[in-house]
Amino acid sequence: MLLAKVIGNVWSTKKKDAISALRLLVIQPLGKNLKPDGNVLVAADEVGAGFGELVIVTQGSPAMQAFNKTDLIPVDAVVVGIVDNLEIADDVAGKKK
Amino acid sequence: MLLAKVIGNVWSTKKKDAISALRLLVIQPLGKNLKPDGNVLVAADEVGAGFGELVIVTQGSPAMQAFNKTDLIPVDAVVVGIVDNLEIADDVAGKKK
Amino acid sequence: MLLAKVIGNVWSTKKKDAISALRLLVIQPLGKNLKPDGNVLVAADEVGAGFGELVIVTQGSPAMQAFNKTDLIPVDAVVVGIVDNLEIADDVAGKKK
Amino acid sequence: MLLAKVIGNVWSTKKKDAISALRLLVIQPLGKNLKPDGNVLVAADEVGAGFGELVIVTQGSPAMQAFNKTDLIPVDAVVVGIVDNLEIADDVAGKKK
Amino acid sequence: MLLAKVIGNVWSTKKKDAISALRLLVIQPLGKNLKPDGNVLVAADEVGAGFGELVIVTQGSPAMQAFNKTDLIPVDAVVVGIVDNLEIADDVAGKKK
Repeated sequence: MLLAKVIGNVWSTKKKDAISALRLLVIQPLGKNLKPDGNVLVAADEVGAGFGELVIVTQGSPAMQAFNKTDLIPVDAVVVGIVDNLEIADDVAGKKK
Repeated sequence: MLLAKVIGNVWSTKKKDAISALRLLVIQPLGKNLKPDGNVLVAADEVGAGFGELVIVTQGSPAMQAFNKTDLIPVDAVVVGIVDNLEIADDVAGKKK
Repeated sequence: MLLAKVIGNVWSTKKKDAISALRLLVIQPLGKNLKPDGNVLVAADEVGAGFGELVIVTQGSPAMQAFNKTDLIPVDAVVVGIVDNLEIADDVAGKKK
Repeated sequence: MLLAKVIGNVWSTKKKDAISALRLLVIQPLGKNLKPDGNVLVAADEVGAGFGELVIVTQGSPAMQAFNKTDLIPVDAVVVGIVDNLEIADDVAGKKK
Repeated sequence: MLLAKVIGNVWSTKKKDAISALRLLVIQPLGKNLKPDGNVLVAADEVGAGFGELVIVTQGSPAMQAFNKTDLIPVDAVVVGIVDNLEIADDVAGKKK
């Protein structure tokens, strides 16, 4: 899963019915050394995440399993958890290079 | 899902029958700080998106769920929504770095 | 889907039986501003594409749906269309930056 | 699969029930020449990996097959093995360039 | 599929049972102009590939179809072919730029 920061909301009225009930967040994934990196993504929120929170995001086909499993919906990114605490071992993270 | 801008159309006469009825758009994904970044993609349009519009694009296996679910088609990117409004929190987006 | 240029052929005699009948092309995806970018890929050809042609390539799990749907084969990239015409709106493509 | 180093742990209390029992590790994938590269990821641990260990990580839809196969969970990265030994042929790895 | 060079082997004793019988190779994908690029990957070998050989690698969900189709295993990269010959058209590959 990605670690990402919630950086915004996105509103869409013309959209596929299957995703009309979803709350859509704009997230910025974290790259090497936990700095923002990579494409901004739109993720469905399933845990009530808010602006600025660090979240765990499941992508791809597994993202669909966070919703109705018998009628899959076209969603490829979903927030599955809000990070309470992140413990990173500096010495093995390559930060010193 | 990706945030992307619709930048064109693509026409193809020699193509797989399964995708012959699709309207194919050329889109440019938005990367960090919402600047165009990453490979240009071809996405099937399911919401009537037009040139220059900002759209939400589902990729990979979930994209197929936007179409006939009992006879899946070889499509890996689909426009599932047109963005009306995008609210980005500058202070958490890392734009100031 | 990717936009890509057919840049070659690849021959393999020692390969999985399931893919032995496929015609394998070497393709170069097009990135931002339609310039060659990203990893060269091997894609199965389903539309009779030739050297130098611009093609539409479906990746990942959806690629398998271009073949036998009851006995899926280990193929993750397939040429699903040959591009006849590509209409790109310069003013929204970010080319002027 | 990715080669990655375990660089930390992540705790989340507000998360989807389906993933509540998982031990979540923060991993840093290794890129070219086995140097840390690419986005930091969160992966479920299925083999008891610890800080600083080099691990093998399965991503995407296949990651779900490491868990209950009849009730798939929204997980897209899982540690499937701990590396005991890695034998790299320098002359073919492009390290000399 | 990726074009990649086999650059090593990886041994793991603590791993998921489902992948215990697999021979795992370390591969370096080839990027633009066929130069090594992108993350080193671990791929299961299904064709008897050896050090330094150029191979075709299927990724993601399709990789699972190279194995038991009724009891899918958590593998996201598999060598499906050894390249005998690669014919690249220089003039269309963008090598001259």
